[in-house]
Amino acid sequence: MPDPQSPLRAGEVAVDLPPRTDAEIYFIGTIRTPWKTRQECPKRGTPDGPICTIVFDERWRDGLTGLAKHKRVQVLYWMHEARRDLVLQTPFQRPTSGTFALRSPVRPNPIASSMVELVAVDGLNVQVRGLDCLDGTPLVDLKPEHGAHQT
Amino acid sequence: MPDPQSPLRAGEVAVDLPPRTDAEIYFIGTIRTPWKTRQECPKRGTPDGPICTIVFDERWRDGLTGLAKHKRVQVLYWMHEARRDLVLQTPFQRPTSGTFALRSPVRPNPIASSMVELVAVDGLNVQVRGLDCLDGTPLVDLKPEHGAHQT
Repeated sequence: MPDPQSPLRAGEVAVDLPPRTDAEIYFIGTIRTPWKTRQECPKRGTPDGPICTIVFDERWRDGLTGLAKHKRVQVLYWMHEARRDLVLQTPFQRPTSGTFALRSPVRPNPIASSMVELVAVDGLNVQVRGLDCLDGTPLVDLKPEHGAHQT
Repeated sequence: MPDPQSPLRAGEVAVDLPPRTDAEIYFIGTIRTPWKTRQECPKRGTPDGPICTIVFDERWRDGLTGLAKHKRVQVLYWMHEARRDLVLQTPFQRPTSGTFALRSPVRPNPIASSMVELVAVDGLNVQVRGLDCLDGTPLVDLKPEHGAHQT
């Protein structure tokens, strides 16, 4: 976790977080990417980006049954380095904006969502193209894009 | 929470959930929809569906600054009635499939994601069209669709 006392940029506003949380998350795997630091990390994945590997924990193996037939999947992951208490934020070289008007990792629940190309499923390893997160990012969920196979 | 001992359908497999959770979620608001029961609820929102109102908690008011300029937003919400321990599941009138090959609410982390049309922002109320969740569903996040205003 970042230092919640780190200095705010011009225009930024932090609020007191609620006194308690309301629900709990299991990390269900780990995302392996080429990017080891936030400086290296692209702001947004591109369809021609490198292959990244989503490694599921053993417990969830059967949950991947039938996944390989899908062309695109949605990946939810936890941006574990982001602070959670800003309501107004000033991204680098951009105007100040409300948190919910941005896709910034800084938000009350730092859950990122990316729609990516499914390349291969091999046991607990799911290869995708188009992700943009740090190596070691915790996986929260993976589901097929809406479409022919949608439930 | 549902009874985790409720009977499984043919082909379904439950696993032991991990001994501990890894991260915590704040519910940041509540989604008001016309659907009071799961039977009434559409399986998937449609662009011509009714207007639903996402009501943010007061704490997050400033976070909505600048949201109104966006045409479409992504809504993350917590499917609080779903069990979390199935790896294989058998949706009604469909074959058995792995949890991660379905968009079913039944999954380790019951977070739904919908991309919907933004109709209006009025104080803490955000009106959208295209949602498909139960009235009273807890809100986890809201962010603009990727696009011109993306960060």
